[in-house]
Amino acid sequence: MSSNRLPIIQPIPVPSGPPKYELLRQSILEEFAAKVPLNLRISASCLAKPPRNVTSIPHECGILSPEEIDITENFDATALASAIASKKFTAVSVATAFSKRAIIAHQVTCCLTEWFMDEAIQQAQALDDHLEATGRTLGPLHGIPISIKEHIPLAGHWSSVGFLDTRTKDEEDCQMIAILRKAGALFYCKTVQPQSLMHLESDSIYGRVLNPYNINLSAGGSTGGEAALIAMRGSVLGVGTDIGGSIRAPASFCGIYGFKATSYTLPMKDFIPGGFAAELNILCSTGPMAHSLRDMDLFMSVVSSAQPHLKDPRLVPIPWTGLRSPTTAPLKIGLMTSDGVISPQPPVARALAWARAKLENSNRFQLKAFEPYKVATAMRQISLAYFPDGGKTLKTHLQKTGEPCFPLTKWVIREGEGTELTSQGVLEQRLLRDQFRCAFAEYWESQDVDVVLCPTYVGPAPIHETAFFWNYTAFWNYVDYPGVVFPTPIKAQSAGIEKYATSDSTPLSDNCKYVRHLWEREDYQGAPINLQLVARKYYDSDLFAALGAIEEALELDR
Amino acid sequence: MSSNRLPIIQPIPVPSGPPKYELLRQSILEEFAAKVPLNLRISASCLAKPPRNVTSIPHECGILSPEEIDITENFDATALASAIASKKFTAVSVATAFSKRAIIAHQVTCCLTEWFMDEAIQQAQALDDHLEATGRTLGPLHGIPISIKEHIPLAGHWSSVGFLDTRTKDEEDCQMIAILRKAGALFYCKTVQPQSLMHLESDSIYGRVLNPYNINLSAGGSTGGEAALIAMRGSVLGVGTDIGGSIRAPASFCGIYGFKATSYTLPMKDFIPGGFAAELNILCSTGPMAHSLRDMDLFMSVVSSAQPHLKDPRLVPIPWTGLRSPTTAPLKIGLMTSDGVISPQPPVARALAWARAKLENSNRFQLKAFEPYKVATAMRQISLAYFPDGGKTLKTHLQKTGEPCFPLTKWVIREGEGTELTSQGVLEQRLLRDQFRCAFAEYWESQDVDVVLCPTYVGPAPIHETAFFWNYTAFWNYVDYPGVVFPTPIKAQSAGIEKYATSDSTPLSDNCKYVRHLWEREDYQGAPINLQLVARKYYDSDLFAALGAIEEALELDR
Repeated sequence: MSSNRLPIIQPIPVPSGPPKYELLRQSILEEFAAKVPLNLRISASCLAKPPRNVTSIPHECGILSPEEIDITENFDATALASAIASKKFTAVSVATAFSKRAIIAHQVTCCLTEWFMDEAIQQAQALDDHLEATGRTLGPLHGIPISIKEHIPLAGHWSSVGFLDTRTKDEEDCQMIAILRKAGALFYCKTVQPQSLMHLESDSIYGRVLNPYNINLSAGGSTGGEAALIAMRGSVLGVGTDIGGSIRAPASFCGIYGFKATSYTLPMKDFIPGGFAAELNILCSTGPMAHSLRDMDLFMSVVSSAQPHLKDPRLVPIPWTGLRSPTTAPLKIGLMTSDGVISPQPPVARALAWARAKLENSNRFQLKAFEPYKVATAMRQISLAYFPDGGKTLKTHLQKTGEPCFPLTKWVIREGEGTELTSQGVLEQRLLRDQFRCAFAEYWESQDVDVVLCPTYVGPAPIHETAFFWNYTAFWNYVDYPGVVFPTPIKAQSAGIEKYATSDSTPLSDNCKYVRHLWEREDYQGAPINLQLVARKYYDSDLFAALGAIEEALELDR
Repeated sequence: MSSNRLPIIQPIPVPSGPPKYELLRQSILEEFAAKVPLNLRISASCLAKPPRNVTSIPHECGILSPEEIDITENFDATALASAIASKKFTAVSVATAFSKRAIIAHQVTCCLTEWFMDEAIQQAQALDDHLEATGRTLGPLHGIPISIKEHIPLAGHWSSVGFLDTRTKDEEDCQMIAILRKAGALFYCKTVQPQSLMHLESDSIYGRVLNPYNINLSAGGSTGGEAALIAMRGSVLGVGTDIGGSIRAPASFCGIYGFKATSYTLPMKDFIPGGFAAELNILCSTGPMAHSLRDMDLFMSVVSSAQPHLKDPRLVPIPWTGLRSPTTAPLKIGLMTSDGVISPQPPVARALAWARAKLENSNRFQLKAFEPYKVATAMRQISLAYFPDGGKTLKTHLQKTGEPCFPLTKWVIREGEGTELTSQGVLEQRLLRDQFRCAFAEYWESQDVDVVLCPTYVGPAPIHETAFFWNYTAFWNYVDYPGVVFPTPIKAQSAGIEKYATSDSTPLSDNCKYVRHLWEREDYQGAPINLQLVARKYYDSDLFAALGAIEEALELDR
């Protein structure tokens, strides 16, 4: 590694490419490094022999002051906004604390594509001045630093859609950023996403994002930089995108909250400037990633109340009621413990059992078994729908700079590779999709449930290069139901201690067998376990209210 | 014409095809005729020398009893439902009256594809029995006969998507029909749509639908059979579809109400069984056609309250408030008097001036000029988006039975004919569409209007084979804004009496010149003039409330 790059931990480097590509990459990484002052760099000794769990490094590395540790560790965004509004903290001190902690987090997890502390402090100073001069905050997010996934355009900063050739400096904030900025948020970094945006791991030209709880595991993708950064408490609130699990999987792997909204309910204008052929049939969603459900609710209410549909009429103007929505009594919860294709690994089964036991104790809920519905069919169809051009556009992007095709990129296009559909082919995918959606909606109604509680992945965070199993998240993209993932107190134990139940001894499929093999071969110890709650399409507010009630019963109302 | 067919008026026959096709057609028309008893047939002398305006034939032909005339002429659906509920009329007498009047209407306008009075009376009898036995109506549409556009599946009847080879007998009601049936509606006929479903005229294997007010003019399309039937008062409520004006143009040409809802707000499941490639980028809408705004409001409230989104999750669950919605004070109305491409013919200009004068008199409204926004661009883009396969599917359908390609079919595919897009091409159309939609939304906001009042077509109903000018309707499909058309008291005068304003002496385009030429060459005398009111996407309820207020000021609250 060149000495002009910022040293970071990278147990398994991303593939290298030809000199032309490496030179471009080098210049980007050097530009990044040049902005990081020496006093914010972690000692070489720590980087050389990192612990497996790096979450306590920010606290212990000596770079942060006690106040900075307090700001970054003891507040969610809601509490922080209140602390800034009441002048307990200045926006400048908050921006400084998170900027410092973010660059520490980056050195141990490779979570950032850009870092701009100076600009953050300038924004914060203007907010402090505003509060001082007017006695009022700019808006409900006054002084809250928000981290942003790389591809989301932020004025004056770089974005790409997962290929080096698409990297451009944006002149304007996209609609989402403009809304957050107007509500008082400030911006200080952008975060790593994978090549092609289509991995459940975040391996990019910037490197590979590591899971803070176990650097041998993936932080997930495609919003993996956000997830690792937030888990490291280098961010209090982030924005991601999700077309197959890209918010929910990394949030789960890193033990934070993440929400994939129903498509076209939150602004995504200009998120993918050249368009994304997958979206002809599978719309991408956006949503917050956070430390608490109430923070995500705050985010939703700020964005919704800005009436983004007036500038982007694709958006459905359903008002956000979120946690304030009434819940039915009893709330009918379908418990889906397996997708019928791959049984979840033992700690996930344990988390489901834990939740079931707690919920059964409360008369606010009616728990029902919810059998999976044709998950293998859905997965086959969505995999093809992701690449209607058979991967042609993707390959063109790679060729332009000589960017090497990463293993997970090769894997994700495998189903339809080389087959470029005509309009008729795209239409046939649409028909299959809509038939599936209608059939699933009827199935859901037949089960008479308000929400479904299920795993977010086949296990805890996977080891690097094995994030193949999109089922538990992508199914909900295929039907376009909103899904929220939330942390449980469960952490994976090692395979020697935690085993598959004897009742679950027959693998459901070859993939199921492989997942068992992975569990037994690898060590996932300490990895967090999240669960996922799902509601009907457009029932996003009801989903939040349901999770609010469930969290109380799970004693998670932190 | 074969003596085994039901004689009907057809001033300009539709093109004939090869023997194989004509034989098939003959058998369909003979099957139709066999169901029509002699006592419901209009005299040959009337058909041989029809008046230009055929609207009074049902009243005068001697086939209907005084009560049947009363039922069909003096009630809208709302009043009729109330009269049936209060046992003023039986459902059987209402079904009989409308069935009889419908078959009379068909003989002078060619509006039906199927007619099944016996079945209607059976349904009505069951409804009467239910009311007698329970003392309660089945639902808010108890006993209301509803006419249905041919392609909408109704159990036991034929549907097609505008090509002979697609004609099939449906075994089940589609979702829309099931909802209406459950609310007490009954069904007695299906109505003519054009070849390909993509004409603003209704010329089909069944013949060409005539405008009741002037049989030399078109009834419009693609829901032309409905429009003519309702204008003849052979139906009190109908269901159409609209992807470029197919509800609004025929409703306007025939002087009735028509509503194109925002896409995916009303159930359309199974409306086009094999899918429609146009819908990859331009979603079709459905909606009611009726004699009053309150009837359309009743229809909307019945369908919305059935929660169709629970079976078809593509539908957006925005509750219907319709005429009960609050309106802003003052209501800001943008008046768009021209689309900037083709100035409307004199009677349309007169109707706009009439409306403006009435509205300016009321302090409930703030009237503003609303300049058209890039209509030519939108029209070019939507024309290409209608046929992403370059017309390939359409031609395959025609070839299967030797069906001749009608002139308006040739015309409608002309822009992209022969060019079958790949997924990338479809994506590029999507991007253009979305850029246009967002830009137009910003333009609308910059104009600060709640609704836009504008023409529905360049003139009154066009003469046959000249319905080329989709601009005033299709623009709103391109941006997917809901639009409602309503009759004014204005009727076209002849060109000798009614001339273009001197201020409007320069044609805006070649098409504008041609439209002027048509006005001067042809005789549109007596044709009704409707206007169109449009609101933001998803503001369908607000649109109804606005039109309710406007109708009061226009003294149209009939």
